[in-house]
Amino acid sequence: MSEPGTSHLSREQQVLERIERARRHRPRVREKNITLAHGAGGKATQTLVEALFLEHFRNPALEALGDGAVLAVDGGRLAFTTDSFVVSPLFFPGGDIGDLAVNGTVNDLAMCGARPLYLSAGFILEEGFAVDDLRRIVASMAAAAERAGVAVVTGDTKVVERGKADGCYVTTAGVGVLDRDVALGASAVRPGDAVLVSGPIGEHGVTIMVARGELEIEAELASDTAALHGAVAALLDAVPGGVRMLRDATRGGVATVLNEVARAAGAAIVMREPALPVRPVVNGACELLGIDPLYVACEGRFVAVVDGDRADTALDALRAHPLGAGAALVGRVEDEPAGLVLLETSIGGTRIVDMLVGDPLPRIC
Amino acid sequence: MSEPGTSHLSREQQVLERIERARRHRPRVREKNITLAHGAGGKATQTLVEALFLEHFRNPALEALGDGAVLAVDGGRLAFTTDSFVVSPLFFPGGDIGDLAVNGTVNDLAMCGARPLYLSAGFILEEGFAVDDLRRIVASMAAAAERAGVAVVTGDTKVVERGKADGCYVTTAGVGVLDRDVALGASAVRPGDAVLVSGPIGEHGVTIMVARGELEIEAELASDTAALHGAVAALLDAVPGGVRMLRDATRGGVATVLNEVARAAGAAIVMREPALPVRPVVNGACELLGIDPLYVACEGRFVAVVDGDRADTALDALRAHPLGAGAALVGRVEDEPAGLVLLETSIGGTRIVDMLVGDPLPRIC
Repeated sequence: MSEPGTSHLSREQQVLERIERARRHRPRVREKNITLAHGAGGKATQTLVEALFLEHFRNPALEALGDGAVLAVDGGRLAFTTDSFVVSPLFFPGGDIGDLAVNGTVNDLAMCGARPLYLSAGFILEEGFAVDDLRRIVASMAAAAERAGVAVVTGDTKVVERGKADGCYVTTAGVGVLDRDVALGASAVRPGDAVLVSGPIGEHGVTIMVARGELEIEAELASDTAALHGAVAALLDAVPGGVRMLRDATRGGVATVLNEVARAAGAAIVMREPALPVRPVVNGACELLGIDPLYVACEGRFVAVVDGDRADTALDALRAHPLGAGAALVGRVEDEPAGLVLLETSIGGTRIVDMLVGDPLPRIC
Repeated sequence: MSEPGTSHLSREQQVLERIERARRHRPRVREKNITLAHGAGGKATQTLVEALFLEHFRNPALEALGDGAVLAVDGGRLAFTTDSFVVSPLFFPGGDIGDLAVNGTVNDLAMCGARPLYLSAGFILEEGFAVDDLRRIVASMAAAAERAGVAVVTGDTKVVERGKADGCYVTTAGVGVLDRDVALGASAVRPGDAVLVSGPIGEHGVTIMVARGELEIEAELASDTAALHGAVAALLDAVPGGVRMLRDATRGGVATVLNEVARAAGAAIVMREPALPVRPVVNGACELLGIDPLYVACEGRFVAVVDGDRADTALDALRAHPLGAGAALVGRVEDEPAGLVLLETSIGGTRIVDMLVGDPLPRIC
């Protein structure tokens, strides 16, 4: 297991040089073979996306690298997104692969500022998978879709031989419409903006680790999986034009989201550790696992960068929503050091919060 | 390997009774565990879809059971579809999993009468998969997308541990717009209509079998994988209002498509065996495999049911298109026996062409 890359501010210049070097060179996948890190959402995933997918599929919608693509269709604006789910175990406290997939896709649409409408579902099943388990997953998807007000309108099922999958993989795609005149994205972020998170972080990831029996603890833990479009709508309506970008903090956690934002915005993000909402049980489990909750996946929390002058209004609006009750203002956007995420620690120091390297928590979603 | 279910006309009454029984009962998955047949596109897939997916996701768009869903969005009409691809081997004469996925999704949109616009791509990769192979697949997807005039605008990558997948699975979803005032579907089919296929059948499936080395033959075979929206547009423009339904003949082949149509339309489909376009090499390979080319997957052919009075015009339009050069009028729709597909054989008999039972060709797409 690799440790999330953190280092002291003294290494800042070094890091900046590395970033500069990376900008001059075209990204390249150095490994000959895919590793779990390529699916972790951190540095290796980013390189894979830039060196392979962007390189070949190059188009403006994809290059925006949002949670989904925003597209002009028939005079309106659509959001379109997809995610594959390979979470293990398939069933865990607070959810299963089914509602995780529905909520995940609904959330990717919500993060584009879209009203989620329709989902597709592609199933890859392993020969021998229990039909009752599939039924449970499908029922859970249907319930999640109903709660979120979306319909699963099209799908596909493939079966592979025993040993060629792990029970059930689900790939959902989603379509939504942008009713509001929003232009969300890291490029809209500017110094002076405030960084909010919508609730306590890391609960999904830690729940999965505990469900796998990798931690010998008994904890009152449940995944935070939830559909966030209602909370997002409340936020967007509270500060019209004041929301810069939204991103749900899934694989790679809040740290990964903020690194992507800092890099794309060419700005610094300075977080205050005491302000970070982390439940004690999550903190404790993370200590046992030797990982930083900042890198642990949430499936029902998002990061919002908002106009600094309207941060209080934004925060109040979030907190008034059931899924934003634990929202917090965790940091601010500054000019320098551009491209970096800093954490002012509880003991008074400052450290760089780097991109995730390796994959401490494989198959978390 | 199970034989495609075919039987003599004398069993017709028996079959009709079975259908009637099935109508009275709610479909139910009898197996406790998923089998390869559940992914074959035939009877078991249909039961799974009806008993699980329709039962839980119930909505009009899904219940239409087309290749994709047609949706009213923002005053326009969108088509939305998804397919997972698990073909083995990943690379085969005439294509690979990449262009297969792009063409497959483009075709599902085309079969809805839509102009394909945007695709998503979800990758499930096995740890250890060669990055060069992934690059080749992505390049092939990009080339296929460019040929089809669509853009891959959003995606996702997951990695599972060694032994938990088979190199690479791809799930594509697609969005298109319906420019034309068409209402395609099996329910529009009526007695007197003509049944066309757009070209020689079975080439994709047989190519895959040969590529697996399961047949000790050397044959000049290549997958027919191709994007069909151009050929479809030519057809729709040639006989405005005259096209009843379109379906690409993938898993389960032409026989499965026609059975679904006959059942949904409550009509009979009578095919003439001598009219069926099958290349001799495909016929030969099918004989060696002990399967009927009518059940073998195509990835670049479609079935069109058109107004019988305009069948010649439709056929001419198809034949004028490079991907419809081998199109043929293969049968007609009749009143009775409702719900059945009959084949008038070359030797003068008539047999029932039943739904596919079992899966003679697993992981063909």
